[in-house]
Amino acid sequence: MTDAPLFNRLALIGVGLIGSSIARAARAQGAVREIVATARSPQTRKRVAELGIADQVVETNAAAVEGADLVIVCIPVGACGDVAREIGPHLAQGATVSDVGSVKGAVLRDMAPHLPPHVRFIPAHPVAGTEYSGPDAGFAELFVNRWCILTPPPDADTAAVERLAAFWSLIGANVETMTADHHDIVLAMTSHLPHLIAYTVVGTADDVEKLVTRSEVMKFSAGGFRDFTRIAASDPTMWRDVFLHNKDAVLELLARFGEDLAVLTRAIRSEDGDKLHAFFTRTRAIRRGILEIGQDSAAPDFGRGHAELPQEMSKPYSND
Amino acid sequence: MTDAPLFNRLALIGVGLIGSSIARAARAQGAVREIVATARSPQTRKRVAELGIADQVVETNAAAVEGADLVIVCIPVGACGDVAREIGPHLAQGATVSDVGSVKGAVLRDMAPHLPPHVRFIPAHPVAGTEYSGPDAGFAELFVNRWCILTPPPDADTAAVERLAAFWSLIGANVETMTADHHDIVLAMTSHLPHLIAYTVVGTADDVEKLVTRSEVMKFSAGGFRDFTRIAASDPTMWRDVFLHNKDAVLELLARFGEDLAVLTRAIRSEDGDKLHAFFTRTRAIRRGILEIGQDSAAPDFGRGHAELPQEMSKPYSND
Repeated sequence: MTDAPLFNRLALIGVGLIGSSIARAARAQGAVREIVATARSPQTRKRVAELGIADQVVETNAAAVEGADLVIVCIPVGACGDVAREIGPHLAQGATVSDVGSVKGAVLRDMAPHLPPHVRFIPAHPVAGTEYSGPDAGFAELFVNRWCILTPPPDADTAAVERLAAFWSLIGANVETMTADHHDIVLAMTSHLPHLIAYTVVGTADDVEKLVTRSEVMKFSAGGFRDFTRIAASDPTMWRDVFLHNKDAVLELLARFGEDLAVLTRAIRSEDGDKLHAFFTRTRAIRRGILEIGQDSAAPDFGRGHAELPQEMSKPYSND
Repeated sequence: MTDAPLFNRLALIGVGLIGSSIARAARAQGAVREIVATARSPQTRKRVAELGIADQVVETNAAAVEGADLVIVCIPVGACGDVAREIGPHLAQGATVSDVGSVKGAVLRDMAPHLPPHVRFIPAHPVAGTEYSGPDAGFAELFVNRWCILTPPPDADTAAVERLAAFWSLIGANVETMTADHHDIVLAMTSHLPHLIAYTVVGTADDVEKLVTRSEVMKFSAGGFRDFTRIAASDPTMWRDVFLHNKDAVLELLARFGEDLAVLTRAIRSEDGDKLHAFFTRTRAIRRGILEIGQDSAAPDFGRGHAELPQEMSKPYSND
């Protein structure tokens, strides 16, 4: 490789879909010299060792962060505070500490008090994922052409922010910076509300089994329902934590959604076809915008084949 | 070809996504000897002629059905009654008349009174589609491994039902028969409610532009929102008609959805993590069921590459 790695030792705390994708991508791109990983459950640690996606798998969070200049916490948002308390005393001088949580205000609030002043704490959220979870679900291309949002505190070290941004760019992401509060309302709209609605619709289908059997629901899901089931199959623990930790923004958007739904329901009840048609026409424009900026594809496979990493994959990583 | 075509002359009234896919598939499979098509707008008729997917393109519905032994009306549900009145006097003795509408009770109610007793009226609904519309959007494999639901009236001619079922099987669909009323509640759950919800969420995103800009909504849509935008980009006229013509079933399911959403909203407000986790775990089971019966794929492209037709494509169709 021509460029030196951006970081010497990456510590990953949690190796699920996101953590294991970071490990694979960081290695493929030569972004770090060494990867140390840990996970709460012995089964996950064993599996990560078998997969060979980290150089070392250690048993404790404290051991994982020793000597690491980049620590990324890849666990459900609700567990971040406790982990910060655990790792705080063991963090190396000047280390960058980050996370991948879908909520940023709560992570900042829960983690910051436990981190020593000598580390650089820069919360992050890669807006990427699938409905699968666990270390086997990850892949190196997960972040390609997806956004990673950094929410550095106002007094963050600029050079450290830039280095973390370079890390995410190198593994394929587009990087954007915003405040934690703004992140939380943006994601409440683009991710948290849609997930909650999808969970609800799938739950409704389960509840009406006297009217429509589950077998019928499954057979005829191609009509639209199956996209909801995919979203609603996402990791329950992660999503429980998202809703508990971004409660205010989600409740605000739920209220607005409820108003919009009431308007459409009224239009159906009063058979106001013009209102329905105008509403459905307006929503097409947003779709066009998404296609234009490349966040989805109009191709038959909807662009969901794996993207490619921006540069050639490096040789298989060696421990020497 | 070894087998004789199932029908001699297929008349297609309306050549959008569904109609043009039927034309392409019927020709590819040799299901009919000849295809006559018409559409309301001169532009569509011109385009269909350019595409060469029908043997004849005619200007009126009456002309299209002359001598046809299979007539399939492929237009928005709200226009079916008027078309039935137009074609009624021109239908050939013993012709099979069908449609592709997403609502069946209203189609039966609106079309049946205008059809002469000598024809066989068998409403149908292929549960397949994309968010694109128009004659260019169709493709021959659209119905492969999708369900086509037939809703024959109680006194329907069994042989005619079987022949129509054979037609749909030949162009790739799995065929199921049920009453129109049952169809309408099943589809309200698996298709109409999800579409209404998707339209609503996308509309909400548009309404909150003071909080979250449209550019942000589009950039960060990978978090779940983009699947909703795809559903909400479907044809506005078709969907207006679906909601107006399946009003009772949709309102019933909207009420149940509202109850479920209230329960989840309350759980978020009261920070009841156990309730959220239990709900999200339950919804995963439905997803597993859908994967097991093959209505979706766990593959990276979510199985959305084009399927293949069940038998070899026949030679390019000739008019001789």
